This record gives sequence, structure tokens and C-alpha cells, in this order.
Amino acid sequence: MIKIVLIGAGNVASHLFKAFQTSEKCSVAQVFSRTKTSLENFETSTETTTDLKKLKEADIYIISVKDDEVENVIEQIKHKNGLIVHTSGSVPMLNSGKRNGVFYPLQTFSKNTEIDFSKIPLCIEAENENDLQILEELANSISKSVYKISSEQRKSLHLSAVFVCNFVNHLYSIGEDLCKENKVPFEILHELMKETTRKATLNSPAKVQTGPAIRNDKKTIAFHLQQLNKADYSKIYTLLTDSIQHKNG
Amino acid sequence: MIKIVLIGAGNVASHLFKAFQTSEKCSVAQVFSRTKTSLENFETSTETTTDLKKLKEADIYIISVKDDEVENVIEQIKHKNGLIVHTSGSVPMLNSGKRNGVFYPLQTFSKNTEIDFSKIPLCIEAENENDLQILEELANSISKSVYKISSEQRKSLHLSAVFVCNFVNHLYSIGEDLCKENKVPFEILHELMKETTRKATLNSPAKVQTGPAIRNDKKTIAFHLQQLNKADYSKIYTLLTDSIQHKNG
Repeated sequence: MIKIVLIGAGNVASHLFKAFQTSEKCSVAQVFSRTKTSLENFETSTETTTDLKKLKEADIYIISVKDDEVENVIEQIKHKNGLIVHTSGSVPMLNSGKRNGVFYPLQTFSKNTEIDFSKIPLCIEAENENDLQILEELANSISKSVYKISSEQRKSLHLSAVFVCNFVNHLYSIGEDLCKENKVPFEILHELMKETTRKATLNSPAKVQTGPAIRNDKKTIAFHLQQLNKADYSKIYTLLTDSIQHKNG
Repeated sequence: MIKIVLIGAGNVASHLFKAFQTSEKCSVAQVFSRTKTSLENFETSTETTTDLKKLKEADIYIISVKDDEVENVIEQIKHKNGLIVHTSGSVPMLNSGKRNGVFYPLQTFSKNTEIDFSKIPLCIEAENENDLQILEELANSISKSVYKISSEQRKSLHLSAVFVCNFVNHLYSIGEDLCKENKVPFEILHELMKETTRKATLNSPAKVQTGPAIRNDKKTIAFHLQQLNKADYSKIYTLLTDSIQHKNG
């Protein structure tokens, strides 16, 4: 049984906690948060503390705090014997020559959305082979897709995620704006959004590109630009159209 | 029983044909295409022709050809008594004072991908109320989501679709590129892509925006820009980041 201390009580920590509760390979011995109120959801199931100095002994300390604070937390608990990992996509693994690692679930978490953790890719990394095996065992116990990913690779995954998640969502919100302007229900586009994503996961997205840009349909492009009355939306339209055409020769 | 003549044999026409075959409200009496080979898939199920002058009498003529050719086809068949509709998102309805309309399925169609037509939104429009009712009956017989949409509204839907489908797919392909550069399997991002889309259909996308741009996480943004070595990808990153920040004050 892998004994875990969870440091942090935000979205990622909460979803991890729930996932660990379903696993037979581990138990969460304690949850830390600086603020007492954020521990309320954990108190009925495990021990909690607001004092980093009162952390229990554990096999793994999982740090799930804001990216900026990860280093600071590691500094304060580095005397511990257990393996210390963080869950951040953008913070490199600490190479201290001791027992450090990364346990990064690649997903967008919302507080009130239920998630099937078994589908979430877990990217793991550790300074030594033994610890990597422990992380692998832990990861396999809650997810079906576990990847050994170096800090260098994780950097590019995190960057890619901004494009395929954050930026994609912004394009959705632009679509919603354009619909609102003309009193069209945005839901008409839902099936198209889903099918576009489905296609891009069944094929290489580069190979299933469609639309006026790749057809070089100048008439439609000019017509669309006429319709756009927000400066940044026009710029985005032009830049993405150029980029599609550039990529496809 | 609504008697249909289908003009065109491309992706949209093929998927419509299959959908009509499952409907008890209509039958496709004939399919037209300029090229004989593209009619091969239809020949076993209905009559076909390569000559517009040999079109049979029908209740509805559905024109599903390239956007540029729609007007030309209408010109050639406008003497027919039936209702004449096209399936294009970007071509306005012909206002001839006769019987014209639009029957626009809002979806991205691929040749070899099976599609559940009942989920595809159908946007209908007609010059007169009677014809709109006929189109509604036909549309309801193959789809669960039918919308009465004016040409003006359809214009903005078509434009929105470029953002939420074509441009989104391009962002996916950029994500794929970035993964390839660092030998990371793109499939790690598939679940994130699906969840992002799911979230944006359950909520207003504007309200579930996440990422370094909306957090104004300058350190991560600078770090990401350092990693991007293609000029147009850097420009896209900067422009979309600015646009997210602009939108969210």
C-alpha cells in the first residue's frame, strides 16, 4: 500500500484525491492546505493540516499547488524521506540528486464536473528508476493511459495543450459571440464542434483540414472578413487563414 | 411521399441520399452529376443522369454542388415546377418570387466516415410559408434538430463554423506539430481535446476559459513564446493570448 500525503486542495488535488480513494494500491494519509476552509471537503475522509511542519511520514508527497509555489514547497519539505513529486505541466522536475519526480495529469479540471479518471493521461517522471516504478504502479492503479515523459517533452506537451485547449476554447467563444450578434442559437454548432474534434482524434488533423482557407476560396474569405466587425477577430481570421495556406503550400 | 431529385454526388449529397433512404416521408427519384463515375454509388438504388435537361419532375430539387456553381445550376433548372433548394452555408437563398429555399446541414462531412444524421442540425429557409412547411416535414424525417434560419443568420453561422471547425482543426494540427518536434505522441492530448469541447457545449465557452492568458501568467507566456520556433505559430500565440485578455478585461 503506497502511503500518500497530498499538498494542495484545489481542483487537481481534489480530483486526484477522489481517484486515489478508488485505488487499492494506495491511501491518502493526509491533505495539506494553507487555508482551513479548503480542507473541509477532505476532513471527513482523512487527516488534514494547515502546517507544512506537521506533515506525516509517507511514501510519496504529491505537491498540487500553483506553478509559482511548487519550488517553494519543495524547499520546505525536501528533508522528508519520501518521494516528492509535483503535478504541474510547466514546472521542470527538480534535479536534486535525491528522490524527486513528476505526476502530471494532462486534463482540464473543473470543480463541479465529474471526471472518469481512468481515461486521463498521466505523465510520470522520476530521478531514479526505482521511483519511476513506484509512480508507474500508482498511476496504473487510477488511469489506463500512463506515459513516461521527460521534463523536456512535458514542456512541449504543456505548450501544445494551450493551443488545443485554451486557444480552441477561445475560438469557440468567438463563434458564440458571432452567433449572439445575429440571434442564432450557438447550440446549432455543438455537433459540428464535437465531430471536428472526433475527426482530429481519429486522423492526423493536418490531413483532415477543410474550409475556405485550404480551398483558397478567395471570394468566401473576403466575404467573411467583411462580416467581422471586431478588429481582433478579423486579425485572427486573417492570421489563421494565412497559416493554414502556408502549411499546405 | 415527397419526391426528390438530387443534383450533385459529392460528400453532402451522398450523406443526404443515405439519410433520405431511411426516411418514410420521401424518395429520391433521380440523382444528377456531370461525371458518370461519381454516379456509380447511386446507380444501384435509383435513376441517374449526367444531363440537366433530363431531370425528372419532382416535389423538391436539392442542389448540392460547389458553392460557386449553385447559381448556375438554379439558372438552368428554374423552369421546373418543384421547389428548388440548395445545401450551401454561404450562398444566399435566391429571391425570385418563385419557389426557392435552402436545406443546409451544418456538419463537416467526410466520405468514409459514417454519420448519425439524426443529430445533424438542418437549417431550412423558403420563400413562402407552404414550402417552408414541406422542408420542415422533410427535415424532421431525417434529423432531430431542425432550425428555421434566415439567409442573414446563415451567413453568421457559416462564419462561426469557420472558427469552431476549420480554425480549431488548424490549432489541433499545430499541437500535433509541436508534439512531433519533441517526439511526444499526440494521442496524449486527445482526451484533453474531447473534454475541452464537451465543456464548451455544456457551458458558455466564454465562462470556462482557462490557461496562462486569462490568468495573465506572464512568466509562462514568455516561456512558451521562447519555445515556439515557427514565426506564424508565435504570432498566433501572441494574438490569441491578447484576444483572450482583451475579451476578459
